Amino acid sequence: MTKENLQTERTRLSRLPKRGAFDRETIYPILDEAFICHVGFIVDEQPYVIPTGYARIGDDLYLHGSSASRMLRNLALGVDVCVTITLIDGLVMARSAFHHSMNYRSVVILGKAELVEIAEEKKRALEAFSEHVIPGRWAEVRPPTELELKATSVLKLSINEASAKIRTVAPVDDEEDYALDVWAGVLPMRVTAAGPIRDERLAEDVSLPDYVANYKR
Amino acid sequence: MTKENLQTERTRLSRLPKRGAFDRETIYPILDEAFICHVGFIVDEQPYVIPTGYARIGDDLYLHGSSASRMLRNLALGVDVCVTITLIDGLVMARSAFHHSMNYRSVVILGKAELVEIAEEKKRALEAFSEHVIPGRWAEVRPPTELELKATSVLKLSINEASAKIRTVAPVDDEEDYALDVWAGVLPMRVTAAGPIRDERLAEDVSLPDYVANYKR
Repeated sequence: MTKENLQTERTRLSRLPKRGAFDRETIYPILDEAFICHVGFIVDEQPYVIPTGYARIGDDLYLHGSSASRMLRNLALGVDVCVTITLIDGLVMARSAFHHSMNYRSVVILGKAELVEIAEEKKRALEAFSEHVIPGRWAEVRPPTELELKATSVLKLSINEASAKIRTVAPVDDEEDYALDVWAGVLPMRVTAAGPIRDERLAEDVSLPDYVANYKR
Repeated sequence: MTKENLQTERTRLSRLPKRGAFDRETIYPILDEAFICHVGFIVDEQPYVIPTGYARIGDDLYLHGSSASRMLRNLALGVDVCVTITLIDGLVMARSAFHHSMNYRSVVILGKAELVEIAEEKKRALEAFSEHVIPGRWAEVRPPTELELKATSVLKLSINEASAKIRTVAPVDDEEDYALDVWAGVLPMRVTAAGPIRDERLAEDVSLPDYVANYKR
C-alpha cells in the first residue's frame, strides 16, 4: 500500500487540520472497525442521510440492500454520495464547559456509487458484509440462492477522495482552569455485545458458536 | 403531547412500512438515548454528512460547534438539512445469509436550521448539550464566558418532519430453513463506558464524581 493522499479541496479540513489524515493507512482501520455508515445523497434538492452496513474490499467500499430500496435505487443512478463512518471512543471532560469534547475517529468518503452487476463480485461482496460484521458466520449459514441474489442490490464506491478526523487526547484546559477543583479526564466509550439470545425455534442441541460467544469489535 | 403525525411524502417509508413510526412519542426517546447525530447538507451540489452532538429541548433539536466551523456556517444559511440518529441494538443471526439483519432504532429529521441569536436560549442549549451527554456535569464545571459564547454557534431545527424506523425482533427465517443445524438468535449490542482515565494534571484530592463512576446510556 503506497502512502497516497486522498485529500481534495472538498475533503480538506478547514478547522483543526492537525486532527485530519488523508492516507489509506489511517482510514482503512477505521472502516474495518466500525460496521455502520451514514450515506448522504440528494433527491429533489433535499439531502437524505440513511444508516446502513458496508464492507471494504481493497480500495472499494460496498453497500447493499434490497433491490426495492429507494436509497439503493437512487444511488445506483450514479449520483454524488458522501459516506461517513464514526467511532465514538470517549467523553472528554475538561474543567470548563467550553473545552468539553469527545474522542472519536471518523471518515468521510466522497464519490459516486455504481451497481455491481457481475455475479461473482456480488457474491464476494455479500460474504465480505457478513464477515465484516460477524467473522466466522458465512461458512455456517445457508448461502444465498439465485433468487435471493436477484433481490439484493450491491453498490461499489471507490475510495479515492476521503478524509479521516481523529481526536484521541486528554482534555485541554485553559491554563488558569487547571487550579479548579473539578474532576477532569476521559471516560472511554465502547460498543460491546451483551449475552446472546437464542432464537425460540432453535433446536436444543445447537450450541452457541465461539464467534458469537467471544464476539468483540 | 398530542399524537401528531410527522410523516410527509419525503419521510414516508417506501419499504417495510411496518417498521416506521411518525409520532413524537416514538421519536423523542430515541433522540434522548443517543447523543451523536449525522447531519447531511449540500454544498455546490455535493452532499456532506458530518457527525456531531446534539440536544433536544421540547420540539426543537439543537446543534452546536465552533463559530468558525464550515458546517455550522453552511447550516446557518438556512439550507435544507437531514439529521439522522441511529442506535444499533443487536445483530440478528438467521439460518440463511439472506435473512441476517440488525435490530436498530433510527430517526430521520428534515428541515432548515436557524442560528440561535438570543443569549439566554443559547446558554440553555449549551446546558442541554452537556446534560444530554453527561447528566450532572453542568453544575460542576466552569460556565462559558462571554467570549466563549461568542466563539460558539448554536443552531435550532424544529422537529416537524420526521420518521423513526425500528427493528426489534428475532430472526425471521424461511420455513424450510428452521430445520437447519445453524445457531440463530440475536446478539444485543450496547454502548458502554469503560474505566474513567484521570487527567494527569488533576489534583489527587479531587475524587471521581458519581455521575462519571456510574455512567450509563
